[in-house]
Amino acid sequence: MKQFWWQRIDLGYKNNELYLGDCLLSQLAKRYDHPVFVYYLPRVISNVNRVKAALTGYFPHVQLYYAMKANRFMPLLTGLKLSGVCGLDVCSPKEVAWAISCGFSPDELSYTGTSLSKKDIALLSQYPDLHINCDSLAQIKQLGETGLFQNIGLRINPGMGISYHNQSVLNYASYNSKFGIYYPYLEQALDLAKQYNFTIDTIHFHTGCGYLSQDLQNFAAVLDQVIPFIEKIPNKVTINIGGGLGVPHQIMDTPLDLPQWAAILYDKLGPYTDSIALEPGDYIVKDAGVLLVETTFIETKGQTHFMGVNAGFNIAIEPSFYNLPCEAALCSLPETNAFKPYTIVGNINEALDVWLRDFSLPEEIQAGEILAFLNAGGYASAMASNHCLRGEFSEILII
Amino acid sequence: MKQFWWQRIDLGYKNNELYLGDCLLSQLAKRYDHPVFVYYLPRVISNVNRVKAALTGYFPHVQLYYAMKANRFMPLLTGLKLSGVCGLDVCSPKEVAWAISCGFSPDELSYTGTSLSKKDIALLSQYPDLHINCDSLAQIKQLGETGLFQNIGLRINPGMGISYHNQSVLNYASYNSKFGIYYPYLEQALDLAKQYNFTIDTIHFHTGCGYLSQDLQNFAAVLDQVIPFIEKIPNKVTINIGGGLGVPHQIMDTPLDLPQWAAILYDKLGPYTDSIALEPGDYIVKDAGVLLVETTFIETKGQTHFMGVNAGFNIAIEPSFYNLPCEAALCSLPETNAFKPYTIVGNINEALDVWLRDFSLPEEIQAGEILAFLNAGGYASAMASNHCLRGEFSEILII
Repeated sequence: MKQFWWQRIDLGYKNNELYLGDCLLSQLAKRYDHPVFVYYLPRVISNVNRVKAALTGYFPHVQLYYAMKANRFMPLLTGLKLSGVCGLDVCSPKEVAWAISCGFSPDELSYTGTSLSKKDIALLSQYPDLHINCDSLAQIKQLGETGLFQNIGLRINPGMGISYHNQSVLNYASYNSKFGIYYPYLEQALDLAKQYNFTIDTIHFHTGCGYLSQDLQNFAAVLDQVIPFIEKIPNKVTINIGGGLGVPHQIMDTPLDLPQWAAILYDKLGPYTDSIALEPGDYIVKDAGVLLVETTFIETKGQTHFMGVNAGFNIAIEPSFYNLPCEAALCSLPETNAFKPYTIVGNINEALDVWLRDFSLPEEIQAGEILAFLNAGGYASAMASNHCLRGEFSEILII
Repeated sequence: MKQFWWQRIDLGYKNNELYLGDCLLSQLAKRYDHPVFVYYLPRVISNVNRVKAALTGYFPHVQLYYAMKANRFMPLLTGLKLSGVCGLDVCSPKEVAWAISCGFSPDELSYTGTSLSKKDIALLSQYPDLHINCDSLAQIKQLGETGLFQNIGLRINPGMGISYHNQSVLNYASYNSKFGIYYPYLEQALDLAKQYNFTIDTIHFHTGCGYLSQDLQNFAAVLDQVIPFIEKIPNKVTINIGGGLGVPHQIMDTPLDLPQWAAILYDKLGPYTDSIALEPGDYIVKDAGVLLVETTFIETKGQTHFMGVNAGFNIAIEPSFYNLPCEAALCSLPETNAFKPYTIVGNINEALDVWLRDFSLPEEIQAGEILAFLNAGGYASAMASNHCLRGEFSEILII
């Protein structure tokens, strides 16, 4: 039986058929004539629990808020609510309303958003129990003028960040980023908070996006930048280190070593707090989801073996727009040892609509076979567009 | 009165107020509490007519198909239909149905799409009057098996292409692109067409995307690559050169010189055909649209003057994802000669959600003022997503 680097107890082949949990993916796909996202709730929950477990030996208070912008499929959110393992990180007034529609209450949410309009403030004012991390001096003023909120957090900018393979588009925290309060403005922020009688109960920051074990040195360096901020806050605060924990995208990626990650967190922040919050998105959902597509044609053009599929970059934009590696798996493996490199392309009339270049798959593949793109649980359906009116897909939660 | 490079007879300031046609943009924007796209139909129609007029001296038959994937706002499509100036370029079965919903008939459409599934073929078979340019050998077979179509076009790949400032993501025609029939496979394509009793009436190809006057030498070189294809077709064909005509995005861009462009087309293709078709998208709609947004906050952080707006990259992705320059204009200009550089950012929690860096605008701008992003008529609303549930916008056609 051929082995793949991404196989897990709940994702892999049995008798040459690919399963996610107990779900036979080729069979499921054939019930639709368009692409299907399949999410496996037990994996989502175990991802949450694994992150929390890594920290609970170190910090008495550990709270996880799943960043719903990664995947807002309603059954998935309700599944998380009923599991009781986490709250939600929200970033827009409509996300607040959506989270509540799925069963969460406002006090289970952590709001961290940017560029709030007057309308946004009016909508957020409907939830005085909502905890908001203020992203700017302007936001402290905007919230202060409502007279409705008591405890707030400060979203600070540590001045450096880390990202998957150092991709600059994913760098959330640097000194030309729009996010957070820069250190030279912290005093002003504290003065403003005092003026509006706010209690600052949280320091929030992002360390980056998609970081893996190789990045843990940088992670520690980012935490060092946060300490001067903490030292200026007179009271004890919860430290919310945002998201950014990465998952492997390709065979050479080393998974994030959670015990080592937790030890660094404790080493750096243990002296300052007994309360830690986290807001991962990708780490919770990405590897719990696959996207099932159908092959449409196989044709060699020049040196390239093209394989078309019935889905374009518009429903899963990370390979095209974020240059993130994609991984594909044939749902029904033939009995063969002959493989060849395929360039897998979508059904959109754009040059960048390419899923994978020169990806090894069995030599004999026909149109109509089902292919799974792995790691499709995060930032795929949530960012889908209807470009070329090719936006049709279904989503399924397996519980 | 300050002058701007993008001012036109139908776009500019009167008494310091920005107008698109007779529409006072600041007033219009205040009727909404979310971003508004405004499209000016007379400009769309004049763009179509200008392209056609450039060619009519040279070719007896000139047909323009507007590429609706650039902007499918239904009132705009119906406006084009009623003006009678063009057909539509469509690229998916749902675009065919959408075009018909807006008043077009199947014989006014030109279909050029890629990676057709069995379902796509079944849907396209409902329109035997539809003209389809086949993108691959596989597609000729797929259509042939239906037994329904008589005349087809061949979408060929000239092996080279051009793009706005040589951006590789916009290069549609090269020999690692999924598009079209490469020259070494032309004989096979002709044989297949014969086998299915197809008459090949069109040679279709893309020359590139966003090209301007500086690229016309390359444009001529691409046309040279097409001639060997034409010479192999036994009968006279319409030559459909796709889209790709660019519009200026920034002050240093020289607009496309249409008379020179037309002369090159005639010089290269005049000996081979008296029938030319074109499928521009951006050139028709891009400069006919603006996106109106509201400023949310102004705050200096470090060396950067940030201006937040109530719209993110998810509703107009070209600046973030295609690295295309953006141009902003304040809808109500103050009486001032003092300007400073602003970095204009959106309301999405992503690092790349930046509209413009260090863009000069009046020094005194308050939250709540209306800003227009220009060149927002193409590939903006059409590719919008609801990321972070920040996808709300309205669209307005001015007729």
